[in-house]
Amino acid sequence: MTVDLVIRRARYVLMTDEASAFLEHADVAVDDGRIVAVGDVGDDARTVIDGEHLLVMPGLVNLHTHLAMTLLRGVAEEVDLQGFLERVWAEEARIMDAAGVYIGTRLGALESVLGGTTTALDMYFHPAEAHRAAVEVGLRHVTGPVFFSFSGPDHLEWDERMMLARAWPETLAALGGPHVPPALMPHAAFTVGLDHLAEIADLAREQGALVHTHASENDRENHDTVESTGMRPVPALDASGILALAPVLGHGVRLDDHDRARLVQSGAAVAHCPGSNLKLASGAADIVGYRDEGIRVGIGTDGCSSSNDLDMFAAMRLTANLARLVHHDPAALSAHDVVRAATIEGARALGIGDRIGTVEVGKEADLIALDLRAPHLVPVHDPYTSVVFSAGRSDVRHVLVAGTPVVIDGQPTRVDADEVMTTAIRRVESH
Amino acid sequence: MTVDLVIRRARYVLMTDEASAFLEHADVAVDDGRIVAVGDVGDDARTVIDGEHLLVMPGLVNLHTHLAMTLLRGVAEEVDLQGFLERVWAEEARIMDAAGVYIGTRLGALESVLGGTTTALDMYFHPAEAHRAAVEVGLRHVTGPVFFSFSGPDHLEWDERMMLARAWPETLAALGGPHVPPALMPHAAFTVGLDHLAEIADLAREQGALVHTHASENDRENHDTVESTGMRPVPALDASGILALAPVLGHGVRLDDHDRARLVQSGAAVAHCPGSNLKLASGAADIVGYRDEGIRVGIGTDGCSSSNDLDMFAAMRLTANLARLVHHDPAALSAHDVVRAATIEGARALGIGDRIGTVEVGKEADLIALDLRAPHLVPVHDPYTSVVFSAGRSDVRHVLVAGTPVVIDGQPTRVDADEVMTTAIRRVESH
Repeated sequence: MTVDLVIRRARYVLMTDEASAFLEHADVAVDDGRIVAVGDVGDDARTVIDGEHLLVMPGLVNLHTHLAMTLLRGVAEEVDLQGFLERVWAEEARIMDAAGVYIGTRLGALESVLGGTTTALDMYFHPAEAHRAAVEVGLRHVTGPVFFSFSGPDHLEWDERMMLARAWPETLAALGGPHVPPALMPHAAFTVGLDHLAEIADLAREQGALVHTHASENDRENHDTVESTGMRPVPALDASGILALAPVLGHGVRLDDHDRARLVQSGAAVAHCPGSNLKLASGAADIVGYRDEGIRVGIGTDGCSSSNDLDMFAAMRLTANLARLVHHDPAALSAHDVVRAATIEGARALGIGDRIGTVEVGKEADLIALDLRAPHLVPVHDPYTSVVFSAGRSDVRHVLVAGTPVVIDGQPTRVDADEVMTTAIRRVESH
Repeated sequence: MTVDLVIRRARYVLMTDEASAFLEHADVAVDDGRIVAVGDVGDDARTVIDGEHLLVMPGLVNLHTHLAMTLLRGVAEEVDLQGFLERVWAEEARIMDAAGVYIGTRLGALESVLGGTTTALDMYFHPAEAHRAAVEVGLRHVTGPVFFSFSGPDHLEWDERMMLARAWPETLAALGGPHVPPALMPHAAFTVGLDHLAEIADLAREQGALVHTHASENDRENHDTVESTGMRPVPALDASGILALAPVLGHGVRLDDHDRARLVQSGAAVAHCPGSNLKLASGAADIVGYRDEGIRVGIGTDGCSSSNDLDMFAAMRLTANLARLVHHDPAALSAHDVVRAATIEGARALGIGDRIGTVEVGKEADLIALDLRAPHLVPVHDPYTSVVFSAGRSDVRHVLVAGTPVVIDGQPTRVDADEVMTTAIRRVESH
């Protein structure tokens, strides 16, 4: 038969499945948005990509980010989380209306796909504008209404937030784009009251929505949450019914033994953001310990005013290196485990591990191809090691999301990169 | 007058001098290998580079590496320093004869210049072959004979090493290339006996040579050095006369208070290699403390079997982030200080801070230009912050060493990249 696309004889294909497997000189065939064959593919194809110098692997899943904050890149330097929030909330009120969010998210989605990220869990204001921008670029974009118990830079009252939330599945369907679950995004247990968290939990249960929130990013957040709720973040999320929904918790740097035990029981996942955690001096999450206990760990970049880019290759490498430092053990976390955290573990945390996250027949084709013709990738001894410790965002040559090529030869296929950048610069300079 | 080259109206020029200064929309003029004007340059030029989208800064100084080890990239995973040495020494005996060193160093020098490194302090066997390769690519390559008290993979006895060393200034002059000091490179105080170290110190004093060695990379190295010499590495280097020569010490992760005080007094510099230190689980050097006490700190990548690439942008970002983690302080080390560590502080550690390391009139033109037209570099709030926390090796567009363009439009001018990579792959596959 004739399929839509074949990557022919890729030098390496990393399936990132449990078996640690990779193939050499193998084909990957894509039809109707899905992977239909891996290995030796006889089929003809309407589009053929020569794989001689390519390493093919699943697209990266950025499990915690705020894409629109590209516009605030570099505005909050040399501050901790609380100083950061103070600085950023003021900037957001100034620049981040619906138009700003659209412009910033488009830039962030472009940076994401160019760097090999095919899925992002994105928490931000004006989610419909954000989603429209990300879908335009071609990113698989998991988002939903954000909640504060006070009026944020989006000037919404609680009832308006809930109204937006109730309509979100319908809004999402109308905006199109690659399949994603609906999501609800309370900012954190220190910014959303317990009653409000409980309302969100009820709605999430009703909608089957994914819940995403920040939790225990640093000691002071824990302290502030105890001050306002009488509990640490994880128990507060637990008491309000959020934790039972297996949410994705951004950061999770300062979890105590009780928090960790509750995460294991509930199936909640941690989105590890080492670049942000180090830059804001929040600390180093003990993700090797979390994993050993049975907590699912994915990898995120956080937003561009704390990290300051969306480079998942940098986040993978830092994850590997930081684990070695924290555990005084050069074998603390294998390159294969790091790649899995950035792909299938992130997908599972989002509840879509059956759809994406590995290179397997039947899954949607979220694939990236790295060009191995770069001095820093010569020689390849083990391809997983090359991906984590030598490769970088600039090696990404082709990107498919749900079978659609969104980056070909390092160029976006669906937006004009110069226009996206110029629009963003104008927005920042005129505000 | 007509000069050799002008970068016309660069968007940013980062001088990296003490004043933290940068210019906007400024010209940089180069003639006869030197910077002859910065700011508003009236001169005509034989070559004009349009600077509209460029950030110009001094080339990066990689203060500790083993370039030829590109051939061993990825061969020693999930081991500590001692496991690493065991693994690597065996590989070196197999593959790293003079021809292997030439091929590996050429690959490493190419990776270096493509990533914005213009100077490297490179410790390896067969230094003449290494230097020939690096000069061919156009890198400013500081190297010299390496010393072990036993016969290494180069199968040299002590007297042969000393003979090589005595002839080194002459060898260096014959090989040509950008100006560099002669150097002598005892591997470490646990691999070179005290008497031998003293011999090297005497010769270095006589030649005015730079001394480069490893020191206190991890606890076990300290322990082993005490076992073999009765002293920790720094006192051993001190007792043998090496320390008084203000050497560059690779790593310096595990220095105690006495070591640090002696480094301050002697003027020795530390080459901080955070990527390698984390990957091998050696620990996190307290470089903010070192700097506060008055120890000069530069930045290095180490060799490609421990780090596993030569990416000085990654090393800068990790330096900044690790300092924040170690000091629980998001303002522990400014972006400006990180850039200075990777440029002028490295140059000063090499004794050539009067020649390179800043963009100043009269200095040799070791310059790099980053292309700001990338989504991850939009917008630029502060250019130093962009360099450290958002930019990467792939943003390097043009590279000059001593005024000679060695990379233009991202392509090497003096070697054929495909041939360099193919030769390296063949070498690895045939051994």
